[in-house]
Parts: sequence; structure tokens; C-alpha cells
Amino acid sequence: MADPYGLRRVVRPRGVLPQQAEVLDPALPLGADELSVVVESLNIDAASFRQLAQEAGGDAARIAARVSGIVRARGKMHNPVTGSGGMLIGRVAEVGPEHPASTELRPGDRIATLVSLTLTPLTLDEIARVHPRSERLDVRGRAILFATGLWARLPDDLPESVALAVLDVCGAPAWVARLAQPGQRVLVIGAGKSGSLACAQARKNGAHVTALDYRPEMPRMLVHEGLADAAMVVDATQPLEVLERARAAGLFDLVVNCASVPGTEMGSVLATREGGEVLFFSMATSFTAAALGAEGIGKDVRLTIGNGYARGHAELALDLVRSNPALQRLFASRG
Amino acid sequence: MADPYGLRRVVRPRGVLPQQAEVLDPALPLGADELSVVVESLNIDAASFRQLAQEAGGDAARIAARVSGIVRARGKMHNPVTGSGGMLIGRVAEVGPEHPASTELRPGDRIATLVSLTLTPLTLDEIARVHPRSERLDVRGRAILFATGLWARLPDDLPESVALAVLDVCGAPAWVARLAQPGQRVLVIGAGKSGSLACAQARKNGAHVTALDYRPEMPRMLVHEGLADAAMVVDATQPLEVLERARAAGLFDLVVNCASVPGTEMGSVLATREGGEVLFFSMATSFTAAALGAEGIGKDVRLTIGNGYARGHAELALDLVRSNPALQRLFASRG
Repeated sequence: MADPYGLRRVVRPRGVLPQQAEVLDPALPLGADELSVVVESLNIDAASFRQLAQEAGGDAARIAARVSGIVRARGKMHNPVTGSGGMLIGRVAEVGPEHPASTELRPGDRIATLVSLTLTPLTLDEIARVHPRSERLDVRGRAILFATGLWARLPDDLPESVALAVLDVCGAPAWVARLAQPGQRVLVIGAGKSGSLACAQARKNGAHVTALDYRPEMPRMLVHEGLADAAMVVDATQPLEVLERARAAGLFDLVVNCASVPGTEMGSVLATREGGEVLFFSMATSFTAAALGAEGIGKDVRLTIGNGYARGHAELALDLVRSNPALQRLFASRG
Repeated sequence: MADPYGLRRVVRPRGVLPQQAEVLDPALPLGADELSVVVESLNIDAASFRQLAQEAGGDAARIAARVSGIVRARGKMHNPVTGSGGMLIGRVAEVGPEHPASTELRPGDRIATLVSLTLTPLTLDEIARVHPRSERLDVRGRAILFATGLWARLPDDLPESVALAVLDVCGAPAWVARLAQPGQRVLVIGAGKSGSLACAQARKNGAHVTALDYRPEMPRMLVHEGLADAAMVVDATQPLEVLERARAAGLFDLVVNCASVPGTEMGSVLATREGGEVLFFSMATSFTAAALGAEGIGKDVRLTIGNGYARGHAELALDLVRSNPALQRLFASRG
């Protein structure tokens, strides 16, 4: 029977999705609509790795022992303290005949998973090495992807660290590609990884792009590199300062929020023209701050939650970087 | 000096808008571009009222004491737990000569405020009565509206309790009017006030409407009254049960979430077809639960935050109720 969300893998509690589960069953045999991966490395979520490292006093062997213990107990690398996971890299071992990728992937193909480790059944045979700086573990193990589990083939024409960094934020450019119209004035808040990709994609769509960040060098560099048309240096958590700058520049048709700090909802709404849109990709976004904020100032704007997935998002983002040497340099330098 | 957002009323922290403020100053004198209202009643936001009632063990006097305490401490009825507010009704006391409504409104006119109580400076002299069913408090107090503060004259052809309840949630049908397409399958989660209006509007747009609630009588009544085409009785906080029911019925093009409880994001996403949309009007929505939930199951859906304002929303909602005796009965019975 089809089980696209992997419910058969939930051991306890009953009746929840794998992400909410305390324990998953990662054992073989593989379901006809599942895919198994020989895992080479785990990229642990930043918050999770920090917690593990602190708990282990920075000792690599103790970090490895703790990861091993979590995976043994839970059947997934779901940090019980932070609640977060990460992603993995490996080679396809087996593709069930009813898995959607059965015609696309073959055993031996190198892929990264784009769904969180918090919902990925996993067994580990060995943890060979811990790389604290890159929050990465070299391992030998086996993971299982469900029919809905997102993955991306690792490109052979981009450095692996660049590809992983791009895949980590590929939802943002994909949604910008859908929403940004030619000739529109687009403001991208936050000039980090997702913000840089959002700028590049909006420009590719034919929009006039302003990059905003509180760190002066970052939006200016995006302009210098041809990824944005204008730079705005202001603290996005200060709505009144954002409003003043946006009024001077002219309000925006589309504001893409890629900030990494909380409290930027109101600045985003204030910078948007009546009838415009805000696309929130910051995980620090507060739903009520956005909804009530727009209502509070009587602003008729559409507010969109940035879904981390959009069909074709990985290929779109990788192609964007492939076609853009400036983005490649930028991601390599931040790797 | 013009101050359309009421910045002069912010006590702390400095440099934020009234909604983000911890404390507002509701004291007179009135600014030249402000409007003051003698407040008769407060309509508390559903999520907020539910939290207050739970905290008070359902006791009306304790609810009143808590509301009184919040308003005294914050200078506004801004629930610190839920972050949400509500609206108020009263008579115009004074209109500053530079307020945009200075030629439209006169002292004594009865209005409802359409901006959230979370940003409305308020003092309360008395809470005369708590109406738990209508989430309404009869009070004596004074409120202040800024130049951007939305308001609506209370219509004389609808009972006041009906008009007030409709105005409180008029953003929902206004956004449904924009998003629901003829022939679409629309699921409305939560058959309360906003859910009922959302159902009626989606039907008016020509969609096939399913009303979902865990209370069997409510969605069935909407069907009986011709406000929805089908009823679905299930607990929206149980994603797998929602999924099972939605699969049986057929997944939906548009899901409108008007639930009053947390934890309904995943059910909403699961019930939506690939490429569909979810419009979140529940103030209990978690941004990350929606964004990461959709990504975790690889679902390409557009997630929209329900902006409480849309141009013309008050007239649209009142007209919807005027033209629909069933809605009038329904709102009257819940007053």
C-alpha cells in the first residue's frame, strides 16, 4: 500500500508523522515506494551541532558517541534538545519500483537529501570523523527516503560545499522566480545566502532589485557584482528607519524577507506599496506580527509564507549559481 | 506634526510602532490628527479569549480581572500570551481637525474600529459584563484612533451584535473573495464566525465548499443552511485523520484555515492538492510549522498569511451578511 509520508516507519507515538515521532524504525526491507541511501556524511543543523559540541565539551569522540546514541535510540538524527536535524549526503543503494525516482535514480548516484534528518530513518555503522567547523560527520550508514522525501543529485561541476550551501536555501529563489515580475521594484531584506540568490533571481526575472542589509559591505558587494541594482544599508528591525529609506527610494512592489533575525515583519510591510506583496523566507518571522502589523496600519498587501519547497527548486538554484560566477565566488568564500 | 502611525503614543521600547510596543500611553489630550472614542464594548480575538478563559478556568470575573490588568499595564488590550487583540465599538467623542475622518464623523456617531486592539490606546473605567459565547465584554472606557486607524460606521439595518461580529473577521471573506475561483474545491477549517463567512464567500465565488470542524453540529448546520456543500467532522489538530478524510473526499485547491486552536498547520497542508494554496486566518498559526511542514513532506503549495485588512473588506462582509438570511441567523444566534 502506498505510504508517501512514511507512516509505516513510525514506532511511537502512534498516529503522528515521522517528524513528530519519538522513534522511527529504520530497518530493512525497503518498501516498494521507498529509496535507500548509503550515507557518507551528515550535515548537522547549526543549532543542533552547537548543542552537541557544548554537551561534549568540544570533544570529537564524545560528539560521535552522542550522535551514535541518538540515532540508535530514535532511528533518526533528531536532536532531542534542539528538535532540529540537518541533511545527509550519500549514494543511492536501492530504489523501490514504486518510488517516484525509480526511472531517474540508479544505485551509485550521489545525492543530498533536502528533507530534514528529523524525519529520515537512519542507521549508523560507524562515525569515521567529526568536522566541527563544517558541522559535518563522515559516517557509514543507511538512510531511507519516502516517496515525498526530497533529494537532489549532487552536481559534478560545482564544489560540494557550494552545492550544499545552495541546496540549503533553494526555496527562496524558486519562489522569487514565480512572484517577481519584469519591471517591478523588488526589495530583498538580508544579503546572506538566501538573500543573494533571491536578488540574483529577481534580477533575472527583469525586476529592479534593491538589496538591504545592516552590514554595509554586503549589499554593496551585491551591487558591485551585478546581483542587485541598488543597496540600502539600514537595520531591518527598525521599522521607522526602513520606512524613511523606502519612502525616499519609492515603495516596493515585492519585498522578499531573508533576514536571519526576528522583528523585521513591520519594516517589510511598511516598505511595500499598497497592493504589493511580502514573501517571508526568514524562519524568525512571527505570523501574528505580520498579519496584525499589516492590518494595524491599514495596508492592503499579500503576505506569503516562504515554503522551503517548490517543484524544481534545487535545479533552479543550482542553475542560477552555475550561470553566475559572482554567486559561485560568493558561496565559495562563505563555505 | 503628522503622526499617522501613532508613534507619539509609544512608551516603550522606543522606536517601534504601537503594535510592537510593550506599553502605550492612552492619555489625553488628543492629537490634531487623532480621534477619540467612548468605548462601549470589546470584541476579543478568538485565540486570545480562549487563552484568557482557560487561564481563568472559565470564570467571568477572573477573565474581567485579567483583561483589566492587561489594559492597565499595557495601555492596550494586547494579550501577552497569544499576541493578539480584537476590536471595539463605541461613540465618537472627538475628531481632531486634521484626522482624515474630520468631515465624515461627528461626536456621537457609532463606530467599530477595524484595527486590532493590539495597537489601540485604551483606558478602561469599568468592565460591566463578560459574554463568553460572543467573546465580548461590555465596558466603559476611552480609546484613540490614529490617522491610519481603520473604522466602520455601524450599519442601521443589521443588529449591532451581528455587525460587530462580522466586522471583527471581515478580512477572511475579503481574501477568500480574491483567492477562491469558480469550480475550485475549497476546504474551510473551523466553522466559527470567520469560517462561516469564508464558506459563504467561497460559495458565492462559485467554488465547491467543504466545512470542517470537530464539533459535528457546526459544519452540518452550514450545509443545512446552504452556506457549504459538504461537512467534514474531524479534529484538525490530527494531521493523519485530516489527511485520511481529505483523501477520501479528494484533496482541495484552496484550504482556508480559520481554526481557533494551535497545531492545525500540518492538517491544512496535507489536505491541499499539489500546487494548491493555504490561506491561514487562524491567529494560532505557527510560521515555522507551516513553512517547514510543507517542505518536510515535499508539498508545493502557496502559503498565505491572512492579512486582516483588504480594501473594502468591511462593506464586502456586511453585504455578504445582508444578502444572506442564513448568515444573519447564524451570527444572531452566536451573539
